[in-house]
Amino acid sequence: MKVARRGFLKGAGIAAGVGMAAPAVAQALPEVKWRLQSSFPKTFDLLYGGAETFARAVLDATDGKFQIEVEPPGTVVSSLDALDAVQKGTIEACHTALNYYWTKDPTFALATAIPFGMNARQQNAWLYHGGGNELVNEFLRDYGCIAWPAGNTGCQMGGWFRNELKSSADLQGLKFRIGGFAGKVWQRLGAVPQQTAGSEIAQALQASTIDAADWVGPYDDEKLGLVTAAPYYYYPGWWNGGEILHLVINFDKWNALPKQYQAVATSAAAFANLDMQARYDAANPGAIKRLVAAGAKLRAFPQEVLETSFKAATELEKEIADTNPKFKKILDAYVVFRNDEYLWWQVAEYNYDNFMIRQRAKG
Amino acid sequence: MKVARRGFLKGAGIAAGVGMAAPAVAQALPEVKWRLQSSFPKTFDLLYGGAETFARAVLDATDGKFQIEVEPPGTVVSSLDALDAVQKGTIEACHTALNYYWTKDPTFALATAIPFGMNARQQNAWLYHGGGNELVNEFLRDYGCIAWPAGNTGCQMGGWFRNELKSSADLQGLKFRIGGFAGKVWQRLGAVPQQTAGSEIAQALQASTIDAADWVGPYDDEKLGLVTAAPYYYYPGWWNGGEILHLVINFDKWNALPKQYQAVATSAAAFANLDMQARYDAANPGAIKRLVAAGAKLRAFPQEVLETSFKAATELEKEIADTNPKFKKILDAYVVFRNDEYLWWQVAEYNYDNFMIRQRAKG
Repeated sequence: MKVARRGFLKGAGIAAGVGMAAPAVAQALPEVKWRLQSSFPKTFDLLYGGAETFARAVLDATDGKFQIEVEPPGTVVSSLDALDAVQKGTIEACHTALNYYWTKDPTFALATAIPFGMNARQQNAWLYHGGGNELVNEFLRDYGCIAWPAGNTGCQMGGWFRNELKSSADLQGLKFRIGGFAGKVWQRLGAVPQQTAGSEIAQALQASTIDAADWVGPYDDEKLGLVTAAPYYYYPGWWNGGEILHLVINFDKWNALPKQYQAVATSAAAFANLDMQARYDAANPGAIKRLVAAGAKLRAFPQEVLETSFKAATELEKEIADTNPKFKKILDAYVVFRNDEYLWWQVAEYNYDNFMIRQRAKG
Repeated sequence: MKVARRGFLKGAGIAAGVGMAAPAVAQALPEVKWRLQSSFPKTFDLLYGGAETFARAVLDATDGKFQIEVEPPGTVVSSLDALDAVQKGTIEACHTALNYYWTKDPTFALATAIPFGMNARQQNAWLYHGGGNELVNEFLRDYGCIAWPAGNTGCQMGGWFRNELKSSADLQGLKFRIGGFAGKVWQRLGAVPQQTAGSEIAQALQASTIDAADWVGPYDDEKLGLVTAAPYYYYPGWWNGGEILHLVINFDKWNALPKQYQAVATSAAAFANLDMQARYDAANPGAIKRLVAAGAKLRAFPQEVLETSFKAATELEKEIADTNPKFKKILDAYVVFRNDEYLWWQVAEYNYDNFMIRQRAKG
C-alpha cells in the first residue's frame, strides 16, 4: 500500500545543537479537554463503560493530550437533554442512544434500532459500508452534531411479565413499562406504555401498577431484581435486535480538532463499539444462568404475537414515512439493506448457529 | 471518569520568545517505519484490506509518523513464511491467519478458528473479555510475537462440490481441496485433502482432478469462477464459524514502541477487526445473489454429515490435547466459553434471526 506521507512536520525541525542532546522541535499538538456526558447511569457499567473505553483509548493514543472527562447523567443536564447540550456546545460530546430523541423526529429511532431491524453485525455492515453513517450524519447536521457508533448491546430481551402471554389478545390493556418509538408500536398492539424509572420498576410490578417491564438483557436486567415480581422473561426483544449507542459530538468542536485527533477518535469509537458488544456477549451467559436459577421462566413470544407486531411496526413506519421525507430516506435504504442481509444470513451464519445450539443442547 | 494525566511532556516546554510565535517544544515522537506483509493476495481485497485499514488508521492517528508499509505475499517471504519472518525480525509485522502455522503446533489453529468453534461475535467476546487474547499471546511468546485480532470473515461457506452429498458415505475418497487443521478432520471422515493453488482450482475441478474445493465465502469465492465446474455450494463451513485474522508483531519491536504508538495500534487493530467483518457482511449478500443467478445450487450439509464431522473433530481435538498441554490449556478454556455462549445465543439472538429470516422469506 502506498501511504500518503504528510510532510507538514518536516521543516519544523531545527538542527541539533553541537554537544547537546536537543529534543526535536515539532508543532506540538494542542492539549484539548472535553466533557462527555453519558446518558447511562454508572450502575449499568457496560453501557457507561462504552464512553470510558472511548475516552481511555483517545487519552492513551494522544499521550494524554486529548482528555475527555466522562460524566454520568445529571452532571450537566439530564440523560435525555444530553443531545441538546451537545448541540448548544455546553458539553462537547455525549454517549447516548439516539432513539431517546425520537420525539424531536422519529428519524432518530433509525439511528439506534427500529422494531424488526437488523442484528448488531448487520447494522455495522450498514453503518460502516452500506452508507448508514453518512445518512445518520446528514440528518444530524440539523442538530449541529456528528456521531459515530460506539457500542452495541446485541439483541435484547423482551422484558419481564407478571403473566404468560398466550396470544396478542393478552396485550390488550397490558401496562407495559416501555419507552420511545417501540412504545408506539406496543400501543398499536393494544398495550398501554408506561414511564417508570429504572429504580422503581420492581416496586411497580409488585404493586401491580404495571404488568410488565422492558429493560435491556440478562446482565443489566439482573440488577433491577425483577424476577420475583414478574418471572416470565420473554424473548426476543424485537424492538432492539441490536441497539447501537452513539458517540455524539458537537459539529464545530469536531471540525476544530486536528485531523490527527479526529483519526484517533474515529478508531477509538470503533474500538468502543466492538468492545461493548464483546463485553455484553461475555457477560450475558453467566447472567442468564443466574436469573434462571433465581426463578426466571424463559418464554419465546408466540409466533402470532411476533407477526402481529411486525405488521403493526411496518404500518407505523410506513405512515411516518408518508409525511416525513427524512425518515423515509433512511428507512427506504435501511429496509433494502436489511432484507439483503437476512437473505445471506439464512445461509451460513444461521445454519451454523442452529447446528451449534442443537449440538450443545444434546450435551 | 478520572483519567490519569501523564505529565512527562510538562517541563519540556520553553518560554515563548518575545515577539515571535514560537512553536511549542515537545519531545517529538519518533518517526517509525515498519514493513507489514500480508498473507493474502491483493486479489482478495477484503482480506488484504484488513492490513491496509490498520496501517491507514495508525498513520492518520500519528500524523504520518508511524508508517507501516503493507506488502503482498512474496515481497519478502512467501505467504506461509510470514510468521517466521516476523519472529526473526526480517519484517516487523504480518497480517495472517495463525492457523496457517498449525504444523508447527496445532495450538495455532485455536487462535483462528477450529471446527465447530464459536461464531465471530462470540470469538470477540472470548478474545477481548474472556481471556482469549491473553492465552493466544502467552502461546505466541515462544515464537517471539504478539498478536491482535484484526479481521474476521464471519461464518464461511463449505465449498463447491461437483456432486451432491447425500450422507457421510459420499465423503469416502472425496478429493477435497482443503488445507490446514480442518483437512485433518476431513481425512478422518474419509476424504482425501488436496493442496491446490487458488488460481488452479477451477481447472482441477473441470478436469476432475479434485471433486470439491473450499475457499471462503460468496464474495471471495466468486472470483475463482467455480460455479460451472462444481455447482453445489454447501453450507455452513463448520470448520470456519468465524475466521479470525491476526496482526502479528515481533515482540521486541512491539516493546520498543512508545506507549502512545502501542495504544494507537491497539485501537487500529480493533477497528480493522470490526471493519473487515462489516465489509464481508456488506459484500456477501450481493455476491450470493450473483452466484445463484450464475447457477450455484445452495445445499445445506446433511444433518448426519454435520454430526459425524462434529464427532470426528471432537475426537481429534481430544487426542491432541492428551499429548499437547499448550493445546489442552487453550482448548479447555475455549470449549467452556463456547458452550456458555451458545446457551445464551439460543435465547434472544437466534430466535430474532429465526423470525427475521422467516418473515423475509414470506416477502
